[in-house]
Amino acid sequence: MLHIPALEKLVHELTKLPGIGPKTAQRLAYYILKSRADYSEVLSEALKRVSAEVHDCPECFNFTDSDLCKFCSDVHRQDDIICIVEEPSDVMRIEASGGFRGRYHVLHGALSPLDGITPDDLRIKELFLRLEKAKTQGTPIKEIILALDADLEGDTTVLYLAKALQNFNLQDHDLTHKIKLSRIAHGVPIGGDIDFVDDRTMNRALENRVIL
Amino acid sequence: MLHIPALEKLVHELTKLPGIGPKTAQRLAYYILKSRADYSEVLSEALKRVSAEVHDCPECFNFTDSDLCKFCSDVHRQDDIICIVEEPSDVMRIEASGGFRGRYHVLHGALSPLDGITPDDLRIKELFLRLEKAKTQGTPIKEIILALDADLEGDTTVLYLAKALQNFNLQDHDLTHKIKLSRIAHGVPIGGDIDFVDDRTMNRALENRVIL
Repeated sequence: MLHIPALEKLVHELTKLPGIGPKTAQRLAYYILKSRADYSEVLSEALKRVSAEVHDCPECFNFTDSDLCKFCSDVHRQDDIICIVEEPSDVMRIEASGGFRGRYHVLHGALSPLDGITPDDLRIKELFLRLEKAKTQGTPIKEIILALDADLEGDTTVLYLAKALQNFNLQDHDLTHKIKLSRIAHGVPIGGDIDFVDDRTMNRALENRVIL
Repeated sequence: MLHIPALEKLVHELTKLPGIGPKTAQRLAYYILKSRADYSEVLSEALKRVSAEVHDCPECFNFTDSDLCKFCSDVHRQDDIICIVEEPSDVMRIEASGGFRGRYHVLHGALSPLDGITPDDLRIKELFLRLEKAKTQGTPIKEIILALDADLEGDTTVLYLAKALQNFNLQDHDLTHKIKLSRIAHGVPIGGDIDFVDDRTMNRALENRVIL
């Protein structure tokens, strides 16, 4: 409408954000323009900086700005238990509850055949490389806790990982290093997003995890 | 929580946007990080570009990326009638209705003693300079339509402008150039934001404007 390409481009880019429709994007763009002159510069710099400094941790694939994330580099955490989550924000949610002191592994999504999300799109291969490496180094993982969303995609991912881990365990003929697999209890509301659970529910869910 | 300063800075800047709380800002920041690598770069560039290219039109104070905005530079619009609005987005709303073919003047806000918004914070001085200039050039303004929000701040601004224009008119002893002042009719819902009105209501409001 305004025929200002720079403004239209900004509105267009803002509509790509989750929950931001064309009307909201327009309001945000106008707000940015109306703000004291340097706000769009400051926001622009913040975006540039985040893209330059923040990357995936090479061990657990959580976000970090160091070589290893703060959980992988923390020597006081338990080494032989890994909690698997879909998103980095889920790590924050579990940490806030204080109920887990092991390591994490972030899949960056969940399996969804309908949306074309296959195991290759997630950090599953990297998980098994990690399990293999831990075994070779003589510090094998003893338990994996699945803290995935309680929805169709989460359930699909649990089934897939349970099967894959069974195969992994069978490679050991003496079964001395069998990895136990558990899932956080369904104190988490069905259909809900793990990111929004309160501390007590999250603690209960960790405590009552069900052995698969 | 994550102790990643770059990420915390981005979340902090995003919470400054209207309607974006800390939780939403965090979700947006995580989404930006998860997106294909160049999205934060693209958004950052879009922000930089908008701040570099878009500025206020020196005549009507609408947003523009040219010397004059598209409405001030349009030779086919009526010169002697000015519609006064609070925000650039209000211009878009009125244009979309198709009910007005004169010029605009954007105040960039409304008077609000409670929030400390005084006439000096708005483009009111510039409005009267514009009226003065038009008179000197022999093409005086004949009518001013106030299309301000139907809330306390809008009403306060209407009262202030009516008084100021009365004084302006009194400077002319022969009253040949008396400027008529009108306000768009209250087809606009009371307490609502002018930006959200449908076309028919806006046309009715322009049509039934009340002479003050």
